[in-house]
Amino acid sequence: MKILVTGGAGFIGSHLCDALIERDNDLTVVDNLVLGRKENISHLLGRSGFEFIEENLLHEEGMRTLFKEGHFDMVYHLAANSDIQKGGKDPWVDYDLTFNTTFHILQLMKEFEVKKFFFASTSAIYGETYDVLNEDYGPLRPVSNYGAGKLASEAFISAFSSTYGFQTWITRFPNVVGERFTHGVIHDFIHKLQKNPKELEVLGNGEQCKPYVYVKDLVEGILYVVEHASADYNVYMLGSDTRTKVKEIAAMVIEEMGLDATIRYTGGDRGWVGDVPEFRYNLDRVNTLGWKAAYTSNEAVRLAIQKALGK
Amino acid sequence: MKILVTGGAGFIGSHLCDALIERDNDLTVVDNLVLGRKENISHLLGRSGFEFIEENLLHEEGMRTLFKEGHFDMVYHLAANSDIQKGGKDPWVDYDLTFNTTFHILQLMKEFEVKKFFFASTSAIYGETYDVLNEDYGPLRPVSNYGAGKLASEAFISAFSSTYGFQTWITRFPNVVGERFTHGVIHDFIHKLQKNPKELEVLGNGEQCKPYVYVKDLVEGILYVVEHASADYNVYMLGSDTRTKVKEIAAMVIEEMGLDATIRYTGGDRGWVGDVPEFRYNLDRVNTLGWKAAYTSNEAVRLAIQKALGK
Repeated sequence: MKILVTGGAGFIGSHLCDALIERDNDLTVVDNLVLGRKENISHLLGRSGFEFIEENLLHEEGMRTLFKEGHFDMVYHLAANSDIQKGGKDPWVDYDLTFNTTFHILQLMKEFEVKKFFFASTSAIYGETYDVLNEDYGPLRPVSNYGAGKLASEAFISAFSSTYGFQTWITRFPNVVGERFTHGVIHDFIHKLQKNPKELEVLGNGEQCKPYVYVKDLVEGILYVVEHASADYNVYMLGSDTRTKVKEIAAMVIEEMGLDATIRYTGGDRGWVGDVPEFRYNLDRVNTLGWKAAYTSNEAVRLAIQKALGK
Repeated sequence: MKILVTGGAGFIGSHLCDALIERDNDLTVVDNLVLGRKENISHLLGRSGFEFIEENLLHEEGMRTLFKEGHFDMVYHLAANSDIQKGGKDPWVDYDLTFNTTFHILQLMKEFEVKKFFFASTSAIYGETYDVLNEDYGPLRPVSNYGAGKLASEAFISAFSSTYGFQTWITRFPNVVGERFTHGVIHDFIHKLQKNPKELEVLGNGEQCKPYVYVKDLVEGILYVVEHASADYNVYMLGSDTRTKVKEIAAMVIEEMGLDATIRYTGGDRGWVGDVPEFRYNLDRVNTLGWKAAYTSNEAVRLAIQKALGK
């Protein structure tokens, strides 16, 4: 299949490329390398059936040429801002990188009659709730511009899919961890402890509790859903129904680094504005389809720490 | 209170202006007059406490000047594309007029620290479902770009409200009818019958069944919700729990015009791409707050027909 992967040099995108190449697809990756990194896909460069294009998804002329020449069967759209805190300080970041990229890709798919679409969505579309989240849960009240950009994307994906006849797969991720990640709590803790091995400052009270999924596990889940869910419009939660507290992550990072640091909590029930302090996933739909994450949330976190430390 | 009404020369916006002026507010109306009409507010021009500015909400310089000089306490944001069929043919229409207008207004409110916000939302955010719709219903799967633009707007309104501390009221309308309307089934039927009084062509099978609300009734509902709902984030369905079939509307128009036309159905369960053939509202939340529409759906439709015919 001829596939376009947007954001394919990013954290999740590059792992998806690995799995799609393994499955003998013809891949074109487009990435502006703002958050993505060329070294994430350097092992794929030069392989037959793999092409990398450095381009901004909002650059109309370049993207039209790409679609005109690419004759794609399917688009996996992963390009987005992934730094939620940054988007809280400047709403234009998620407006452009998380939402506008999606709208422009949809327009190009409509124009060039690409009929299959995958979208990487997120638990952040739900906002703050203690209910167990499933695919049909409402109301949707994002508290971050990142979550808003993803929900706004889903809104137009829904309308385009039904109006212009796309077959669509949307998976909603929880926190994703593993090799090549550039943001998030594990990354932060390791950096802080490298600077000061005696003390680890943790934002909030450490009680924030969320499901974490290992990136390679997630990518297998994505492809399982695309290969097995056959409705016109397929929405799936992906991840784990287990969860990990921030204080557990802190303890695991200290242990894996072989340190004896004390933990200092800044207090409050969340790390920063736009943070959702806890959520949990109902995975019945994807389990019924036949997929289950290989690792629990705690196992995923520990594995990601070990990989980040080069173990 | 110093209030900005966007889309204030439009169908619903101009009735809202009438009610806000009656309540002794200081109003500034901004409208690009693409869908709005100056005659809708001509009776307000020159009144003290009323100002009309012809401006495009996406024209940054003009809008920043307006906010800088306006010192608004609250924004009622009604500007949007209202022609759902047009938005199906060209997705940029709802991208710009329904969604981008909202995002830009939110940015201006953030910058100029306006803290109260009203947004006119719609049943179209839900898409096609036979369930009874309430405020917390999910999933949200709009089938029109109009519905997508409104849902995308709600997404960023939610994030901005919680991140930047706005107090927000959102009401979701069903079909709205009455004086000054420019689109919709009543309008179409009257025009068709004026051209050919012998036969009325009805798109679909006539069984499409939706709640209709009379515009002045709706405006009283909006102001009731803003005046009585005091949470930080308030979402209310507004309208009627009664409904009217398209075939009933056809019969009422023919009767009120005093004609003896035959009705010809084009067939199929919907009028056009993006049409939602039926939906119904659960109004418990607004009823509990103390508001109920004065007219049933059938009464609203008949009244709107009579007003359109100058009765």
